[in-house]
Amino acid sequence: MKDSEPSGSAPFSAETYFATQPPPPSLDHDMATVRSFVRKQTERGMKVVLVTSGGTTVPLERNMVRFLDNFSAGTRGATSAEYFIKAGYSVIFMHRQFSLQPFSRHYSHSTNPFLDLLEIEHTNTNPSSPLTAVPNITVTPSKREDLLEVLAMYKKVHHDETMLTLNFATVNDYLWMLRAISHELSLLGRSVMYYLAAAVSDFFLPSQKMSEHKIQSGKGSLHIEMDQVPKILKSIVDEWSREGFIVSFKLETDPALLLPKCRQALERYGHQVVIGNDLHRRKFEVVFVSRNGPNVTEKASNTSNNNFGAGESHLSEYWLRLGTSDASASSLQHPREIEEDIVRELERRHQLWIDAAS
Amino acid sequence: MKDSEPSGSAPFSAETYFATQPPPPSLDHDMATVRSFVRKQTERGMKVVLVTSGGTTVPLERNMVRFLDNFSAGTRGATSAEYFIKAGYSVIFMHRQFSLQPFSRHYSHSTNPFLDLLEIEHTNTNPSSPLTAVPNITVTPSKREDLLEVLAMYKKVHHDETMLTLNFATVNDYLWMLRAISHELSLLGRSVMYYLAAAVSDFFLPSQKMSEHKIQSGKGSLHIEMDQVPKILKSIVDEWSREGFIVSFKLETDPALLLPKCRQALERYGHQVVIGNDLHRRKFEVVFVSRNGPNVTEKASNTSNNNFGAGESHLSEYWLRLGTSDASASSLQHPREIEEDIVRELERRHQLWIDAAS
Repeated sequence: MKDSEPSGSAPFSAETYFATQPPPPSLDHDMATVRSFVRKQTERGMKVVLVTSGGTTVPLERNMVRFLDNFSAGTRGATSAEYFIKAGYSVIFMHRQFSLQPFSRHYSHSTNPFLDLLEIEHTNTNPSSPLTAVPNITVTPSKREDLLEVLAMYKKVHHDETMLTLNFATVNDYLWMLRAISHELSLLGRSVMYYLAAAVSDFFLPSQKMSEHKIQSGKGSLHIEMDQVPKILKSIVDEWSREGFIVSFKLETDPALLLPKCRQALERYGHQVVIGNDLHRRKFEVVFVSRNGPNVTEKASNTSNNNFGAGESHLSEYWLRLGTSDASASSLQHPREIEEDIVRELERRHQLWIDAAS
Repeated sequence: MKDSEPSGSAPFSAETYFATQPPPPSLDHDMATVRSFVRKQTERGMKVVLVTSGGTTVPLERNMVRFLDNFSAGTRGATSAEYFIKAGYSVIFMHRQFSLQPFSRHYSHSTNPFLDLLEIEHTNTNPSSPLTAVPNITVTPSKREDLLEVLAMYKKVHHDETMLTLNFATVNDYLWMLRAISHELSLLGRSVMYYLAAAVSDFFLPSQKMSEHKIQSGKGSLHIEMDQVPKILKSIVDEWSREGFIVSFKLETDPALLLPKCRQALERYGHQVVIGNDLHRRKFEVVFVSRNGPNVTEKASNTSNNNFGAGESHLSEYWLRLGTSDASASSLQHPREIEEDIVRELERRHQLWIDAAS
């Protein structure tokens, strides 16, 4: 990596970040709900997964008009959360406000608007029973079965209280929330998994550098200079939630960079799995990068920053691909989703992790 | 305004922009649907309004991972489109993909998820009629009336084909589409209104300056330098759709700047109305800035770039506010929306505009 020119201020460490940037107003309230949720799951002996999903924003002004965003509809996170529920986990779904959520994801207003599923049934008006004059709303018969499946699962999750939903918008919200949630989840020891699928900003504008009001466009070209966001994954692994099973994601656009970046992240942070995906292939192909051998269920002792080349025997690469066999096996109505396979494989590895401690 | 330092390249004119930036792949297809829609409305003698809604993006990479966005849920546009339909207009709704749309806006998955409106009705299973064993899906009685109202209007619009929906994401999509649509709409002469509520980027990255792949965060701080987006409103007014009734919006965060910026825009572009709103007051207060006097139904002859001060008699300011009387008059179920008043006032002014030519 090339050395960068200093921007005029030292890079932010995690410690400096939290000492200088203000927490979101809703933090205490959110953490009270997390605390209560975690307590219930502990009483029930449930495994818990924190799923983060969607992109974080970097506002350019304090009265926000413009912001830098990371591209992420939230498909990976929202879809995976459903499969975690099916696998018996309780889920904390921490997502970008307005991004895809479990269950409602099947009915995006743009691609499958729910209003198209409904019909107005004009019942025969009976003068002696004025109440029957009110039209009834029914679900189109051909859509009923699929909707029933989604609705039944949605109702069950609400009834059983097996999912807690939180939202964030800015990278600042995200970092504060992740830090606080990690502290709460550390009570669960090895029974907690972190599924960090959110697309987190690498760069941000410290509030002290932010413009108060809307940047005026009369002033020629726009120059934005941003600082690097501190890598808090290290803090989660080393300090905040040492026993958790931690899975992070790497998204790359250049295929040549995918594996090197995954290995680099795993070596740098010392967590359990990096799931790598190429922007253009992510719906049907991912790679799990993790450590090999008998130590796979123990924390890495080596967290040095060496960049190991391909074929280093202490790292393994496990490719998941939706293949043609999947395509023919699935019905056209229910195409297979790679998240089903991702979650199954992680559930297996997490159980090994849990068992290794007992 | 301070002079800005040149960025090293001349500012883009509209002409240079379209000569150098590539059109979106879907442009021809979209315009074919617009052409067909416009023809139908002309046959029916319908007035047409183009409503633009939501924010435009500026991708930072050609394989887009990050982008600059303008804050806009699309509430103004989506809500206004419903009132234009009620007022008898046909609507072309050109919105940011995944932002709020008419009708479904009432059922945001975050704030009023439709799955919460539905119930599973377990009918008594009758062994001799196995079909009755399939559970029925019904709408919760307390939600039925409101949903019926929205659903009925939605169905009617689809049946009558009085709304065409198009979407954009990038500012490049937006500019190309607006230009092409203006050409199609010019056939309607004075019967077309432009309601330009979209939050359009003031700055962009020419494709020639864009990075091919995801900008890597290992390189210290991030520097972004952007060019100004050419002001194409002038082209619409002067060249592409000379007879249209054109309404643009101004959003400011500093109250002191609101009226001066509205007046400046009206003077600079020579269109009919600028609707100004303060970011924090926009749901209950807007101001219409327009030209005074007998010339109000004719195009401005003066489009010089003078910045007139307050109280200049040739400009008028018309304030719309949702007041306490509105609050008490409306039921809690149906709070009044300022868009109802905005659309009523514009309908009145547009009719004067149309009549002035006959």
